Amino acid sequence: MKVRLTEVGPRDGLQNEAKTIPADVKVAFVDALSEAGYEEIEVSAFVSPDRVPQLADAEEVFTRIKRRASTIYSALVPNERGLERALRAKAGKVAVFTAASETFNRKNVNASIAESIERFKPVVEGARGEKVPIRGYVSTAFWCPYEGKIAPEKVVEVVKRLTDLGVDEISIGDTIGKAVPAEVMTLLDRLLDHVDQDRIVMHFHDTYGTAIANVFASYERGIAAFDSSAGGVGGCPFAPGAAGNVATEDVIWALTRSGATLAPDLDRVRAASDLLAAVLGRPLRSRAREALSGGKPAPEAPE
Amino acid sequence: MKVRLTEVGPRDGLQNEAKTIPADVKVAFVDALSEAGYEEIEVSAFVSPDRVPQLADAEEVFTRIKRRASTIYSALVPNERGLERALRAKAGKVAVFTAASETFNRKNVNASIAESIERFKPVVEGARGEKVPIRGYVSTAFWCPYEGKIAPEKVVEVVKRLTDLGVDEISIGDTIGKAVPAEVMTLLDRLLDHVDQDRIVMHFHDTYGTAIANVFASYERGIAAFDSSAGGVGGCPFAPGAAGNVATEDVIWALTRSGATLAPDLDRVRAASDLLAAVLGRPLRSRAREALSGGKPAPEAPE
Repeated sequence: MKVRLTEVGPRDGLQNEAKTIPADVKVAFVDALSEAGYEEIEVSAFVSPDRVPQLADAEEVFTRIKRRASTIYSALVPNERGLERALRAKAGKVAVFTAASETFNRKNVNASIAESIERFKPVVEGARGEKVPIRGYVSTAFWCPYEGKIAPEKVVEVVKRLTDLGVDEISIGDTIGKAVPAEVMTLLDRLLDHVDQDRIVMHFHDTYGTAIANVFASYERGIAAFDSSAGGVGGCPFAPGAAGNVATEDVIWALTRSGATLAPDLDRVRAASDLLAAVLGRPLRSRAREALSGGKPAPEAPE
Repeated sequence: MKVRLTEVGPRDGLQNEAKTIPADVKVAFVDALSEAGYEEIEVSAFVSPDRVPQLADAEEVFTRIKRRASTIYSALVPNERGLERALRAKAGKVAVFTAASETFNRKNVNASIAESIERFKPVVEGARGEKVPIRGYVSTAFWCPYEGKIAPEKVVEVVKRLTDLGVDEISIGDTIGKAVPAEVMTLLDRLLDHVDQDRIVMHFHDTYGTAIANVFASYERGIAAFDSSAGGVGGCPFAPGAAGNVATEDVIWALTRSGATLAPDLDRVRAASDLLAAVLGRPLRSRAREALSGGKPAPEAPE
């Protein structure tokens, strides 16, 4: 099966870094990712620089990256103002975002889920008018740090409202990385009754080590699109904060060996991660990356 | 479902450490693991001290540990001499080991698989005579660093020879950590035609990040016994060498949330790992451990 990856490292990854990353580094990172051959790279977010200073250079990064014809360069947009900026920067896809948890959404964007979706209407209409495809993020789709377990019915309801609005694809996020495969299967069973499986993207964070298992569970249910970040960037393992997205290297390694075909080249993704690791000054969170850059098998039994 | 864990950190983990671990630390580590409530802890190996200097203190460690009545303290034994030492040290279970790959076995113990199994006969008879249960390790059951992919038929053949010999349980090892869930399912499908599922233990190394996915795949197939090491100890991520066993913390976290019941207490396992981390002077390889000792969820969407 052909599996499509959206690289979210430059946006979801870097927005959570404590260290400020210069635009030069971001441009070089996105260019290195482009060379790896991704179908899609989420480059940045056109959000308020006051709220997310880490991504205040979105315009500059979009202007300076070298674009590959076969790669979509996408951006997160919270509202019409964000959409205008994204269109001006020639983003190839825009993403709106809400949560499946009311409390999380209110803490995150100070609005109910219904209000958030209401705000998307002009964004979606505006993007459709320009023939720019639209992604919708549904975060905390399994667990919420405030509400605990989120009912699959709630996720289905939010997803249906987004697809009714005209959103082309939905990224289902395990924001705090607490989901296990049984929960993924339960949610997908419900969801696939209402939404075409090729409109679903799964977005896992590898907080407790279940992300790859969740990718496999989704893949088994016919899901062929995932979000991942090079080197598992995002958050910081040595400080309070969420763990990063599932590492692109780990996803490519695991799915390729399971018979799937993926566009990005593993070695070139590793090269892009190297570039970032040098700047972040800490080891990245990818098992496959660790193993491929230095490990050789040692015997199991002692003699 | 009740899942049984065998903690292999003191043996499989520590034998691969570059740093020499003093017997005092090993005793304290095993005692801390005992307090966590494991059903079984593989304490050491009665092998030649020349071949595995790291485990030369097996007798001392066995003598000094505080034993919990409900925990089995087991040991690896390569031959009759090893069995004698293990029985004298009052090991509660002994383990013999072979590979499913002829080349790996020859490089590891300088014998063919058939010769290895021949050597086990007096060991198995001796242990049975003393009513000590016997485990058989079958390493490189999926991939061999020399031969590549190992055919499931070969594994089935080796397992059958071990069970015919009177070995009570078989630990199926993904020694170099290259297996993916589809391979685990294929092997188990074949194996379970010949061996009772409650005699099978799965033993994964987390080299490329698929170990927890492989645990889930096995669990789905009805396997309820796994080997793991506290903190994922074993090998060294920063030097050439195999990656460690799947981390006990990650297995407990993932399976507990999936409805399984496990005896060891997660917090006490973490305490045992802390003790080791302080001595090894490097971060251990467990996602759940990282997340539980400092992580708090951060928001996904930027505003």
